[in-house]
Parts: sequence; C-alpha cells; structure tokens
Amino acid sequence: MAQSAESKQKLREICRIAARVFYEKGYDGASMQDIAQAVGLTKAGLYHHVGSKDRLLFEIMNYGMDILDETVLARVRDIADPREKLRQTIIGHIDLIVRARDLEITVILHENRSLKGALRKKINARKRNYIHYLEGLIGQVQEQAGVPPPISPRLAAFALLGMINWLYQWFRPEGPTRQNELAEAYVDFFFRGLRASP
Amino acid sequence: MAQSAESKQKLREICRIAARVFYEKGYDGASMQDIAQAVGLTKAGLYHHVGSKDRLLFEIMNYGMDILDETVLARVRDIADPREKLRQTIIGHIDLIVRARDLEITVILHENRSLKGALRKKINARKRNYIHYLEGLIGQVQEQAGVPPPISPRLAAFALLGMINWLYQWFRPEGPTRQNELAEAYVDFFFRGLRASP
Repeated sequence: MAQSAESKQKLREICRIAARVFYEKGYDGASMQDIAQAVGLTKAGLYHHVGSKDRLLFEIMNYGMDILDETVLARVRDIADPREKLRQTIIGHIDLIVRARDLEITVILHENRSLKGALRKKINARKRNYIHYLEGLIGQVQEQAGVPPPISPRLAAFALLGMINWLYQWFRPEGPTRQNELAEAYVDFFFRGLRASP
Repeated sequence: MAQSAESKQKLREICRIAARVFYEKGYDGASMQDIAQAVGLTKAGLYHHVGSKDRLLFEIMNYGMDILDETVLARVRDIADPREKLRQTIIGHIDLIVRARDLEITVILHENRSLKGALRKKINARKRNYIHYLEGLIGQVQEQAGVPPPISPRLAAFALLGMINWLYQWFRPEGPTRQNELAEAYVDFFFRGLRASP
C-alpha cells in the first residue's frame, strides 16, 4: 500500500466509512462486500486498498491513534509547564471522545478483541506509548506540587483514561452538561486526586 | 420461562457459557448452534431455555446486573454511614470487574450495542438505577464533608464508573499492583476528588 498523500486520504475515507459499517453490523457481521458497497468501490477495489479484513480493522484503529496524535498531542507539544500540558491534554482528549464525528472509530479502538497477533501488538504498543506519556507528565506534575504523591503515576494515568474513555458510553453533547463544563470539572477533579493544583 | 430455582440456575449456567462464546466469536459471529454445542444442549433445547438469540443476550446482561446487586449492593445495604457505604461500594465494584470469573459477562454488559428495542431499555434502566444510587450516595458524602461540593454528584458518579469499568481493559490480578492496593488508591483518589475524606 503506497502512502502518497492521496492514497492516505483515500485510506482514511475508507476507514471512516468502514468503521460505521462495523459499528452497525459488528466486525463479524459485516462482510467486505457490505463495506465495498458503502465506500462505493468494487470488492476487488476495496481489497486493493486495504489488503484484508483484518488489515482494514487494523487501519481503522491505527487511524484512531493517528487522530489522537494529530489533534491532541500535536497541540500540546510546545507547552513547557507540565501542569498546563496535562490540563490541555485532558481537554483535548475529552474533545476527541466527545466529538460525534469519530464515535465509531473510538468504539472500535476500545473494543479491540477482534484484532489478533502482530497487528494487535502494534496497536497495543501505540496505546502503551500514550499511557507512558501520561505517566511521565503526571510524575512531573506531582514533583512540582512538592507534596508526597498520594497515588502512583501509573494508577492515576489509568484512572484518567477510564474517566475520559468512558465518556462515549454516556456523554451526549446535547445533554444537560456542556462539554467545557465537563472538561473543567474533570480536570479539577483529577488534579485534586493528584493533590496538585491545575 | 419458568423461574423456579432450578431453571434459574440452568439459565445462569447457559448465560456464563454463552457469554464466553460471544466473547470469543462476537455476537454476530456466534450461532445458536455454537452455543447449544458449548452448553451441551440441542439447538431446540437451547431455544426452550432462552427463547431467541436476542433474548439470550439480554439474559446475559441481566445476569450481569444481578451479580452487581447480589455481590456488591447486598453487602453494603445495611451500612448507615454514607462515606463507609460508598467506600465499600467502590471496593465491591472493583472486585466484580477484576474477578476473571465474570470477565466475559462484564465485557458483554458494557459493549451493549447489539441489544435493541425494549430489551435494551430494560438493561439501560437497571444501569441508570445504579448510577442514581451512586449519585445519591455521593451527594450525602459531600453534604457530610461540609465544604461546597467541587463537582456535581452526577459527573463524579460517571467519573467513578469510568475509573472502575475501564479496569477490565488493563488491570491483571497477576500484574505488579495488588487488587487491594488498587482499591485503596482508587477510593482515596476518588474521595480527594470529591474533597471529602474516605
């Protein structure tokens, strides 16, 4: 699969549409024929772009991790202060989960039992990198706070991921709580949990 | 479906085994024949017990909620102090999620897109009852703490559910953190977030 800008765009378009089909019919319930039809390709054309059904699932998850990199991490890369960097990471990650646009990709990324072997390992390695990034940042924030850390960066990082990633189960942008209130409440709650001011 | 003690036991056995099959093959990928075979029934025998595949999925989720009632809520029912009641609820819920025995049921309960219509509403109503219970308890704890609550009981309840329900994604009892350390760290973290001592 060539990775010219054009073929990358095409692959992403396929990923977005295929994610919707998997979301609706389940990974096992959706055929490559269903997906080809939804994308507007022949089955042969779809296989040309993605190789196999497993590979397509991998590409969707990989795209999900790309979105995290491009829309959350890229925006905080130049922030020097660990507290502000963590605060903006939380706000960006919440925005990513809450945005209806990528809901199907989020769901598929988290419910990743269908992916096996080497492809699963690659996705898990990318997820692990993000957890290590959070752990490192939390450790720096705790150090700056100057009080003995009441929770390990590792457990705090997973608590944070749970709080945020669970949002897709219940938070609706049209519901009673606005996204910015939610983000502010979660940031403050998390920093209190770390015993460090945001 | 008669609900004698014996048929209830049989239904639960079917639910546990079917949850494992759905977990492995996906809801759409697993046939009633696969499940009948795993349970050791004929297909007709399986239909006699569960009515339909949809109904079976509902029964698995309903069983998951029964386990929450029977193993978490029943044990805290007589605790009068809201702080202690919340603390024990958190510890019990963590234990439920972390126990490998019911992993498949937990996963199916949370990844509930396959359930439709009235059956889905019934499960969602049971989930909502639990959230209301948590909200009420959190409200009481905040009131006792005597400081202005820094987060609404509703957002705090969902943050807590996220922290706990996400455990199935990463926590392994054989890993570096013991379950009781995890539970203690999470309880303390959550109470700091509420700005109330546990």
